[in-house]
Amino acid sequence: MKKLRFAILGTGFWSYFQIPGWQELEGVECVAAYNRTRSKAELVAKQFGIPKVYDNPEELLDKEDLDFVDIITGVETHASFVQMAADRKLNIVCQKPMAMSLAEAEAMVATSHKAQIQLLINENWRWQYPIRQFKRILDEGHIGKPFRARVHYCNSFPVFENQPFLKELDQFILTDIGSHILDTSRYLFGDAHSLYCQTARVHPDIKGEDVATVIMKMGDDISVNCEMSYASRTEIEHFPQTYIYVEGDRGFLELGPDYTIRETTSEGTHIRRFPPKHFRWADPAYDLVHSSIVDCQADLLKHLQGHNMAETTGDDNLKTARLVFLSYDSARQNNVVKTDNTSIAK
Amino acid sequence: MKKLRFAILGTGFWSYFQIPGWQELEGVECVAAYNRTRSKAELVAKQFGIPKVYDNPEELLDKEDLDFVDIITGVETHASFVQMAADRKLNIVCQKPMAMSLAEAEAMVATSHKAQIQLLINENWRWQYPIRQFKRILDEGHIGKPFRARVHYCNSFPVFENQPFLKELDQFILTDIGSHILDTSRYLFGDAHSLYCQTARVHPDIKGEDVATVIMKMGDDISVNCEMSYASRTEIEHFPQTYIYVEGDRGFLELGPDYTIRETTSEGTHIRRFPPKHFRWADPAYDLVHSSIVDCQADLLKHLQGHNMAETTGDDNLKTARLVFLSYDSARQNNVVKTDNTSIAK
Repeated sequence: MKKLRFAILGTGFWSYFQIPGWQELEGVECVAAYNRTRSKAELVAKQFGIPKVYDNPEELLDKEDLDFVDIITGVETHASFVQMAADRKLNIVCQKPMAMSLAEAEAMVATSHKAQIQLLINENWRWQYPIRQFKRILDEGHIGKPFRARVHYCNSFPVFENQPFLKELDQFILTDIGSHILDTSRYLFGDAHSLYCQTARVHPDIKGEDVATVIMKMGDDISVNCEMSYASRTEIEHFPQTYIYVEGDRGFLELGPDYTIRETTSEGTHIRRFPPKHFRWADPAYDLVHSSIVDCQADLLKHLQGHNMAETTGDDNLKTARLVFLSYDSARQNNVVKTDNTSIAK
Repeated sequence: MKKLRFAILGTGFWSYFQIPGWQELEGVECVAAYNRTRSKAELVAKQFGIPKVYDNPEELLDKEDLDFVDIITGVETHASFVQMAADRKLNIVCQKPMAMSLAEAEAMVATSHKAQIQLLINENWRWQYPIRQFKRILDEGHIGKPFRARVHYCNSFPVFENQPFLKELDQFILTDIGSHILDTSRYLFGDAHSLYCQTARVHPDIKGEDVATVIMKMGDDISVNCEMSYASRTEIEHFPQTYIYVEGDRGFLELGPDYTIRETTSEGTHIRRFPPKHFRWADPAYDLVHSSIVDCQADLLKHLQGHNMAETTGDDNLKTARLVFLSYDSARQNNVVKTDNTSIAK
């Protein structure tokens, strides 16, 4: 089978994980890299053996013979790169968060429909190995019908030390980790019907919110509470783990520290550990996140090869974007917001 | 100092703990007991050395020389006993929950104001020893300004086996444990400004709700999430403990299993145990709850002696009742409800 040829647009931090992630997979090859600063593209190209380098994205798209592009640039540029690719009938893989606003996300999806191209979102969180195993065990049904869940991502990771530009964002944790956590909730529990959000700014020197609580009604009448924070100093630092707790009518399922899933029913408690895989190019401290990129991209690749429908298509991820931006509306109004997904532009 | 003389109205389950609770205190004596079934009153009178027994409450109130009455009957009778005592200018201690509805609670408080008598509520949960210590440590301020909290009372105690009439209530967990949990939240975090509630019925054979989640904005802008359930099968049964988690801008404070408080700051984690006192008349399995009755009643007694203002006056408890009943409104409407406490009848 012919290898799918793609170019990456953007050679920043995450390209150092997404490119080797693609290289773990059969049937795909990166043939070109763009960055507005040519020297940065050259560094990445050299490290990963990418033959061509560009500092003009249109030139790249016009000259290269591509099956798709992988957009890894800042969120503020996603829409314009999507348009650029759509104009050339190229399929697209795009970083999360998809867009700066719900309107922009809807427009991007509409653009992909109009151009009849595939728009896929590189939303990797739901592909974390312990989360996949959690879903599998949840679906086995031993704890019965879930009635309430908590998805908990609260830590004191010094995110602003590593990425000081995050301090300047008007909208922070909900677009950043919120996109992941709300998407993971959709993966686990189904579509959201309503949401209510409260936010807080705890770090005194930032513009946006670094704490958010989103309580949703999801799926078949489950109450799901998402707790997020980059301002919580806990006894054992949680970063970068997501903890999940589900109460069912016959038991309790939890994903806790150290990738451990505990399933409690009338039979007792069954404890199993599901540590993530380590790849040689990954930072061992981030195996959980880095290995999920491989599994996410494998799913996207199968879609691009025509083998299946990817989980995190643009259409699907628009539902997550809707939850993110409606959360801001809810917090501002201090009110519950309906989240029906009917107005997706076709 | 002259002992305050009181009568108990109602000699059911809780009288077996409230009477010995009073007997732990100096300066108060129970001089009469009423029950509609005289033999039940006689049993209690014999066990606790109460001189007089009645099966007609008005006869009791007219014949006895009393400083106050302690109403321990079912909630549906509270309003009429309050009126009966108010007609005779008697001070009142009344079981929680105060009333069947918010309107009834408001009317009871108005009655007490009009008659210029004291109406005090026997709301003991906030007097649990670990919860008092939690408040003390929270107020020391080592964890800084709290921005989010969770008050968690979720267990699988077979409450319907012991008290089958609870199955028939249209409103269950919010009036039952919710009165306690919402009051404890007010004690810890201050007045509520808004609330949002979701409820569920998990036990298939009951009328009311056995699961509730209430998220409030409280005090100086704290997000407080109260989780309640009698349908949660957890690895280690929580009953009858309340767990509390507070995130502050400088640390984390939690009350967890076995009466243990863990305080985490940049200095590390400080772990202390605060087990409740045991009284000879208490069930050791319920020391946490039973000992709190003594401390609550000590506070009410000081008020009746003119030494201080009790925490759980009728006026104060009306704010808790408001949260309980507005929670039902919120759940029914799936919307946020403002909880301003302005319309208390005077």
